[in-house]
Amino acid sequence: MDFDTGMVIRDLCIITIFAKAFGLLARKCKVPDVAGEIIAGLLIGPSVLKLVENSDYLSAMAEIGVIMLMFSAGLSTNMRQLKKTGLKATVIAAIGVTVPLIAGTLLYMAFYGRAGLGSDEFYKSLFTGSILTATSVSITAQTLKDLGKIKDEVATTIMSAAIIDDVIGIMVLTLIIGFKDPEAQPLWVLAKTLLFFVFAAGVGFLVYKIFKFFDKKYPHTRRIPIMGLALAFGLSYIADEFFGVADITGAFAAGVILCSLKDSDYITRKMDVNSYMIFGPVFFCSIGLKTDLSTLDTNVLLFSVFFVIVGMAAKILGCGGIAKIMKYSARDSLKIGVGMMTRGEVALIVAQRCLSFELMDGAYFTSVILLIIASSIITPLLLKFLYTEKAKSL
Amino acid sequence: MDFDTGMVIRDLCIITIFAKAFGLLARKCKVPDVAGEIIAGLLIGPSVLKLVENSDYLSAMAEIGVIMLMFSAGLSTNMRQLKKTGLKATVIAAIGVTVPLIAGTLLYMAFYGRAGLGSDEFYKSLFTGSILTATSVSITAQTLKDLGKIKDEVATTIMSAAIIDDVIGIMVLTLIIGFKDPEAQPLWVLAKTLLFFVFAAGVGFLVYKIFKFFDKKYPHTRRIPIMGLALAFGLSYIADEFFGVADITGAFAAGVILCSLKDSDYITRKMDVNSYMIFGPVFFCSIGLKTDLSTLDTNVLLFSVFFVIVGMAAKILGCGGIAKIMKYSARDSLKIGVGMMTRGEVALIVAQRCLSFELMDGAYFTSVILLIIASSIITPLLLKFLYTEKAKSL
Repeated sequence: MDFDTGMVIRDLCIITIFAKAFGLLARKCKVPDVAGEIIAGLLIGPSVLKLVENSDYLSAMAEIGVIMLMFSAGLSTNMRQLKKTGLKATVIAAIGVTVPLIAGTLLYMAFYGRAGLGSDEFYKSLFTGSILTATSVSITAQTLKDLGKIKDEVATTIMSAAIIDDVIGIMVLTLIIGFKDPEAQPLWVLAKTLLFFVFAAGVGFLVYKIFKFFDKKYPHTRRIPIMGLALAFGLSYIADEFFGVADITGAFAAGVILCSLKDSDYITRKMDVNSYMIFGPVFFCSIGLKTDLSTLDTNVLLFSVFFVIVGMAAKILGCGGIAKIMKYSARDSLKIGVGMMTRGEVALIVAQRCLSFELMDGAYFTSVILLIIASSIITPLLLKFLYTEKAKSL
Repeated sequence: MDFDTGMVIRDLCIITIFAKAFGLLARKCKVPDVAGEIIAGLLIGPSVLKLVENSDYLSAMAEIGVIMLMFSAGLSTNMRQLKKTGLKATVIAAIGVTVPLIAGTLLYMAFYGRAGLGSDEFYKSLFTGSILTATSVSITAQTLKDLGKIKDEVATTIMSAAIIDDVIGIMVLTLIIGFKDPEAQPLWVLAKTLLFFVFAAGVGFLVYKIFKFFDKKYPHTRRIPIMGLALAFGLSYIADEFFGVADITGAFAAGVILCSLKDSDYITRKMDVNSYMIFGPVFFCSIGLKTDLSTLDTNVLLFSVFFVIVGMAAKILGCGGIAKIMKYSARDSLKIGVGMMTRGEVALIVAQRCLSFELMDGAYFTSVILLIIASSIITPLLLKFLYTEKAKSL
């Protein structure tokens, strides 16, 4: 065992212990596990204990973790539900992406000055907006399950809209990253992005047929999740290397391709074991490791407060507003808006992407983390209230 | 996504696809999956298709894979069974380690000349012997299960002896590696090795109490396998860094510490998902990647043939012989000898270790692979024959 491998194993030992311990602690405080894992990363990283330094090795493991998370997210797409509530959900998702995107962009500009089209500052504001686009519906789903309302129309609409807004959010991110390249020709970026989706659809059609055959002939065998993971890796690489599209888009596409398999749950379960045992903690900790607390100042903190408020309000206004226009009752519209306002992994992944393109300072991760924590605490409380008798007068 | 991460993801995609496809192909040919995975590595590596090059990144992932495999091996120790058949099994294991160790050492010397105590050649021959020590009992266990004989006395003895010979084999390896250091003081090496086992026992005692508490209070929760993996990483690092003991020894010790937990099977299942999805294929493929076929010559091939024969014969003679002396019937003694002659992962891990200490040429991996394939094919055939009526006359 050479020195480097030894360090990797040492780092992994520290990361898994701290991430799990703080994840559990977070759960005790009714905050999502990931928030605890990020804080664990902050603690063991250069900001505090200096036990672990972020290395290329850990970054690559974190990237594998992100690919697994996005693959899982794609896999959990429920096509049948999507078809049923498709149109309404799509409209809600589209508005629910647009409003926060614009609101976030304007918020950044309000704080750091308006910038000309195409300048770095302009892209920074767009990226800030794009972080706000994707809903993470797991907290909402859990709350609705607890209330026994997961099958009603409002819940189905929320679940579908949350999936569609992932897709739209990722497309927006893909486009912004494509345009960001100073030599990018807008049409060419659009064309390559479209081409990738055409390519993924084509490959997806063929691959799905093959998987379906194996799924039927050898259900619940290891080959299915393994080949699924290989597909996620393959599409991630191809997206980035040949189409200039974000690798996570490829991983998400791989998940969507396989989401209608009978064994899609089986694949998800196996992926999740890999995620929670090792790659997930490394990813969330690495966010903490990259966050430099020394750059935190009152300006950043003030921005964070506004970021959290704007982030939540934009979803309630966007999704709730359009729901009301589409003839949902006021109370149901509010439920939809509140249900859509939770953020989670995807927001972090987008923020991570911004950091890697040097379009965000590590300090701003704080805003994203605060938004995740705040929305995860407030959503269940508000939802529970909206489902009580008292709220009937709304 | 920077270039390197992209390459890692591309490599992982190729490795998972080829490893699984060839693993399945191997199974169709009644050969263990791992043989197929190694051949997949050979095929995609520099020897043939040149699709993947062995990188530091892959080496570190392979190392994580080995730690997981050894942790799993330790976890599968059945303490109750060990206590029941302990004494007889220990004697069988000890002789079953000694005979192949000596036979392998002599074989190497016969081919490459006798070497003075402490010379490099001397260590190469000792290492060659140590590769032959550890039985991999999974094929035998599967065969005995198929025959419905897994619970009989012979089977229990074989299973226990196989576990004990892993422990003895790893101790032998640890000592040889320790002594190999030109400046090693034999007594100090022995002392450090002993100290590590004392340390592991002490830590193990405490850690086991803590795990038992959690196991009872929160059975089947994710924290148990995660913290188990952290323990494996931790002991691996500590073994190597502070005691100069092989990291795999630490991982194995971590498994033994936790093997009596109620949830030890649960931990093993979760570890196995991580192993078979990604780290296992990377490990077995990396063996193929490191094997340089261009150095294969008739001498190596001739050596391989003898290596396979000596490897199998030494276990039959050693284990079977001592069983006969301990009053087992001739037929049962033969069953024990044959049951103990299969080799697998552990032999590969030891061989890998030899390669990393430059005490083996990549070409000799061929011998190890051939031994694994040959013993895995011959053992079930011979065992089935020994359990038939016809063999009663033996």
